[in-house]
Amino acid sequence: MHLIEFELREIQMKEEGLGSRQIIVLGEKDGEREFPIIIGFAEALALDLDLHGYVYPRPMTHDLIFNVMEGLKAELKHVVVDDLRDGTFFGKLVVRTADDTEEWIDSRPSDAIVLATKKKVPIYVNEQILERILNENE
Amino acid sequence: MHLIEFELREIQMKEEGLGSRQIIVLGEKDGEREFPIIIGFAEALALDLDLHGYVYPRPMTHDLIFNVMEGLKAELKHVVVDDLRDGTFFGKLVVRTADDTEEWIDSRPSDAIVLATKKKVPIYVNEQILERILNENE
Repeated sequence: MHLIEFELREIQMKEEGLGSRQIIVLGEKDGEREFPIIIGFAEALALDLDLHGYVYPRPMTHDLIFNVMEGLKAELKHVVVDDLRDGTFFGKLVVRTADDTEEWIDSRPSDAIVLATKKKVPIYVNEQILERILNENE
Repeated sequence: MHLIEFELREIQMKEEGLGSRQIIVLGEKDGEREFPIIIGFAEALALDLDLHGYVYPRPMTHDLIFNVMEGLKAELKHVVVDDLRDGTFFGKLVVRTADDTEEWIDSRPSDAIVLATKKKVPIYVNEQILERILNENE
């Protein structure tokens, strides 16, 4: 799988409410390709607050994931948006384990991007799906 | 620390909206003591949907925590509400690790109770704080 580094370029917070859908835009770090992903309100809010340097008074559910990793002596290395099927993106957390192996853990891209943003680790996209996305958007 | 088993007895979903606060009631499994905990809307909704057997089309952030544990060959044994300071409850996830030790991981009680409910593992309360809570509520 050929991975290309992307970064979070934009968060479009539109409608209010927990059930609403928001749009984020990922852009190629050293290039011009970009594409939108639809994510949930809670994840968009977590991203938006984090990017504005807002620190919650209490750890949020995404922070608990880091507590779990730390308690298990593991560490988030990077995240990958690795598949697109029927208009739905799929992702992975790539985690270094206590015995120094690498685990790929299924994650919605929205959660993966929140975690990558909080931990300042890279967001990669599988080049194969990128070609598919960009062809579809043409 | 002396632990007493509790169960989720009630979810009071009142106001709408992500910023709102909801109340859940924990009750002693083999007794009559009970007390309320204030939790966030997202966690209350996760509990309510789970108790009504609703399965999300996609895994939610709490499900991702189980994916992370599974990927790291760990397992949630039970959760503990272990402290109360300045009116705020604190909790732990008690996790069996790959090398069969036990890790206590900091967690808001709301996340801990969502995870315990999803995984059907026990919820314990530290008896010391229980006495304090019940004295305060008298």
